[in-house]
Amino acid sequence: MQGTAIAQPNIALIKYWGKRNTKRNLPAVGSISITLRELFTRMHVKFDASLAADTLIVNGTPDNAMLPRLASCLDRIAGPDRHRARIASDCNFPIAAGLASSASAFAAITVAAAAAAGKEFGQDSLASLAGQGSGSAARSLFGGFVELKNMDDDIRCATILDAAAWPLSVIVAITEKGPKAVGSTEAMDISRRTSPFYSAWIEQQDEDLATARAAIARRDFEQLAAISEHNCLKMHSIMWASRPPLVYWNAATLRCLETLRHLQRQGLGVFFTIDAGPQVKAVCLPEHAGEVADALRGTAGVTELMTTGLGEGARLENTA
Amino acid sequence: MQGTAIAQPNIALIKYWGKRNTKRNLPAVGSISITLRELFTRMHVKFDASLAADTLIVNGTPDNAMLPRLASCLDRIAGPDRHRARIASDCNFPIAAGLASSASAFAAITVAAAAAAGKEFGQDSLASLAGQGSGSAARSLFGGFVELKNMDDDIRCATILDAAAWPLSVIVAITEKGPKAVGSTEAMDISRRTSPFYSAWIEQQDEDLATARAAIARRDFEQLAAISEHNCLKMHSIMWASRPPLVYWNAATLRCLETLRHLQRQGLGVFFTIDAGPQVKAVCLPEHAGEVADALRGTAGVTELMTTGLGEGARLENTA
Repeated sequence: MQGTAIAQPNIALIKYWGKRNTKRNLPAVGSISITLRELFTRMHVKFDASLAADTLIVNGTPDNAMLPRLASCLDRIAGPDRHRARIASDCNFPIAAGLASSASAFAAITVAAAAAAGKEFGQDSLASLAGQGSGSAARSLFGGFVELKNMDDDIRCATILDAAAWPLSVIVAITEKGPKAVGSTEAMDISRRTSPFYSAWIEQQDEDLATARAAIARRDFEQLAAISEHNCLKMHSIMWASRPPLVYWNAATLRCLETLRHLQRQGLGVFFTIDAGPQVKAVCLPEHAGEVADALRGTAGVTELMTTGLGEGARLENTA
Repeated sequence: MQGTAIAQPNIALIKYWGKRNTKRNLPAVGSISITLRELFTRMHVKFDASLAADTLIVNGTPDNAMLPRLASCLDRIAGPDRHRARIASDCNFPIAAGLASSASAFAAITVAAAAAAGKEFGQDSLASLAGQGSGSAARSLFGGFVELKNMDDDIRCATILDAAAWPLSVIVAITEKGPKAVGSTEAMDISRRTSPFYSAWIEQQDEDLATARAAIARRDFEQLAAISEHNCLKMHSIMWASRPPLVYWNAATLRCLETLRHLQRQGLGVFFTIDAGPQVKAVCLPEHAGEVADALRGTAGVTELMTTGLGEGARLENTA
């Protein structure tokens, strides 16, 4: 009746922005991500017949804001007539700040809840269940380089290259720890309804996915860098052209980009990606990680750095 | 055989980005601008049979970089077999830094050269001649709120509302005085060739122009603010999604936007626009200009402020 799972956040290189089905939380486009190693969310789920209501403790503190979405996830996994649950979560990085905390959270709770409910799901079903909680969570069930494909009225995820096969480093530059002003789900809907560039984005995504897939297969860092930065800037362009505009960047975000452009001109293997938040993720060749981290640490407005490699998918933890 | 003219830069609220004819320098879209009052470029042109070559002095210093474009302009006005010319220019604001210095320069030289050549041109012909030198220069021949329309293989400009009829203020926040890395002409061509959003931009421009035209006619500040900011962010989105990306903003640019967003939430009548450079132009109701200037002056990274109202079109100066 209980289960504990750990999952890592993932960062999309070819981004997901916009839904084709809001109710089922189906993405409008496919995406390609890398699963991180050092950042994690651990979720413990315990179904208990004696409880009158679900409870959620995040990093030791009760949290009611996230509870409804997590409870719906438990309903989908254990059935609506399930016992109420105690949910406890530990997370070693800022939450709701554009660092894919919901991806790792929903991947972890899906795996933990399935175990707690004593149910066996295949990876495809788990991915589908996780994806209904958070669009990007399905990818965190898998490790390394992961592709999420749209399949009729469902999604399908798979590792396209293992973490060990191309061990890149990721430096996350935190520029602001507070939660973002507009959540991704609402922001995606604003973009879908109002951005004049939304349809062009949807149309071109398959080409970007193919380019990135080929670059990953060839371990072609330069090609992956070019398509990832382009896809990221396109996503933010769509947001900026939305009405009202969605600007997640701050001054330090832009300064980090300048720092990375400078390193690129010096020949370092590094590129940026930015999600719906002000943090900058620098993906780099491991031999350049130290230099990239030093440069970002020295960039005004960067309050914290996290350095990580690529990691595994979500998994159960053996608890005593 | 000589003439002196003065012209003010203009700032487009509904932007021009991209050309439909590079050779004739015809814009891909129409635009609406405001002509400023306090910033100026003065151009003195003297045709002299004794000269072996054209010369250009900018703010007292010889400048050969701009000379070929200005010389071509003189050829178009005075004919290719004209005498060589001494050109002297004075400009009271940073040049080639995204402050429309080329607009005021080409508007002024067109008027000065026509006088020096002893030729009479109508305003339409002058606008067409100025526009061949710099796409936005045609607008600086007119004062107040100016619309540039595409007409077959030419352009047509006119004042749609006089400066005095709706006396707005403009605060220009300078964040960097150096010339930009990529000039507008080259950048527009990169966008036309590579930006996935370019065609959507072209298609929607007429609607944005109509919205702004109606807002100006009604003196509807809020509506003009909304469409101007939207159009500006769209233009920058196109640049960012270009390959290579064209990012003209710096950290202070973004910080100025945050400052202005904050003022807007407090109910102040102010909106931003940004051209191909890192400077932020805040257009505001005159009664709020002081507060807007104070807030921008207090924004980190702003090195200089210029406050101006709306002004007249290019005109000859009586010289002794």
